Amino acid sequence: MSDGESGSGTPRSGRTGRRPGNADTKLAILDAARERFAGAGFDKTSIRAIAADADVDPALVHHYFGTKQQLFAAAVEFPIDPAATLDAIDAAPVEELGATIVRAVVTVWDSPAGPGIVAMARSMFSGGAESPARAFLLQVVLERVRLRIATPGDDARARVALAAAQMVGVLTARKIMVIEPLASMPIDEVVAAVGPTLQRYLTGDIDTATP
Amino acid sequence: MSDGESGSGTPRSGRTGRRPGNADTKLAILDAARERFAGAGFDKTSIRAIAADADVDPALVHHYFGTKQQLFAAAVEFPIDPAATLDAIDAAPVEELGATIVRAVVTVWDSPAGPGIVAMARSMFSGGAESPARAFLLQVVLERVRLRIATPGDDARARVALAAAQMVGVLTARKIMVIEPLASMPIDEVVAAVGPTLQRYLTGDIDTATP
Repeated sequence: MSDGESGSGTPRSGRTGRRPGNADTKLAILDAARERFAGAGFDKTSIRAIAADADVDPALVHHYFGTKQQLFAAAVEFPIDPAATLDAIDAAPVEELGATIVRAVVTVWDSPAGPGIVAMARSMFSGGAESPARAFLLQVVLERVRLRIATPGDDARARVALAAAQMVGVLTARKIMVIEPLASMPIDEVVAAVGPTLQRYLTGDIDTATP
Repeated sequence: MSDGESGSGTPRSGRTGRRPGNADTKLAILDAARERFAGAGFDKTSIRAIAADADVDPALVHHYFGTKQQLFAAAVEFPIDPAATLDAIDAAPVEELGATIVRAVVTVWDSPAGPGIVAMARSMFSGGAESPARAFLLQVVLERVRLRIATPGDDARARVALAAAQMVGVLTARKIMVIEPLASMPIDEVVAAVGPTLQRYLTGDIDTATP
């Protein structure tokens, strides 16, 4: 073989180049990942187990898909790599989480990735609790936020669920139902309006009934 | 004719009884209503015009469908008669609108009418801005709330849009995405958590950015 970059060898060789990749191997990994993540959830699924199911070396899984989180995102066909958004959330001080999340999320929805996210939301709404994208959202994205705010006395599950409900509502009202003037509200105004809501859900007093 | 309750006469007679009604006439009225409401909106559509389109007496429209609002609800196949909910909102003091709306709306979603509302929401999410139910929601329900809070300096359109986004989010997270523990949270806790959010959107300070 004169072309050292060709991926015609067995994937176990570890010599597989980025081009042209091996489409069948990638699909086998994604199939195995979908099955494992759906059955055991994100935390209890290992790259090693997925690699074994797909009959490849774990290093090849990392090579093709990056981290376990990125593999999960690819397996559920999440329309963006959420790493940048999640890193921004990790870097924010706890008392600025609300505004940070609203700004990061609305910025992505308003970007060229927006239509893909709206399509995912629609499929999540028709798939309900069975949607693979929902599993990724709950097990990766919400967990990441929850771990920032959980305390010994409060696992913060209700807090992140309320925050998720608010963000889903803003997405739906802005991009799907197109309720004006929210649909065309500048991001700064959305952050000013909705940021304090998220901050209260995440770190404020949510147990006191109003009159 | 020995049966005075029979609706076999012309609808213009005004003598049509409730039973058995005239299914064709009702459908003609609903068709005319859908067309008028979709073309001109709720405010600019009159029962008189719909009656003329359907070739019936306006009194018959009222007899079959009640108020213009109830006719609109029937025309878009809104799953409930929202009169009771809207009356509760009208009766609440402005400073209790948030908690009142959350309690009234979540109570209806948790009632036997809930699955019908979820079905309507799903069809609204796939129909987007063209959904007839969306038109009813925006032109009747949100307008009713808006008129409670509008001031000479603030038409309150952004306020009701933000409140709608929050309620759509709670519905979606609770009933469609089934995000726990929100999905099974008792109504009192939902009111305590989300009521203050709605109150702020409707009557509080929503223009000040957080740090």
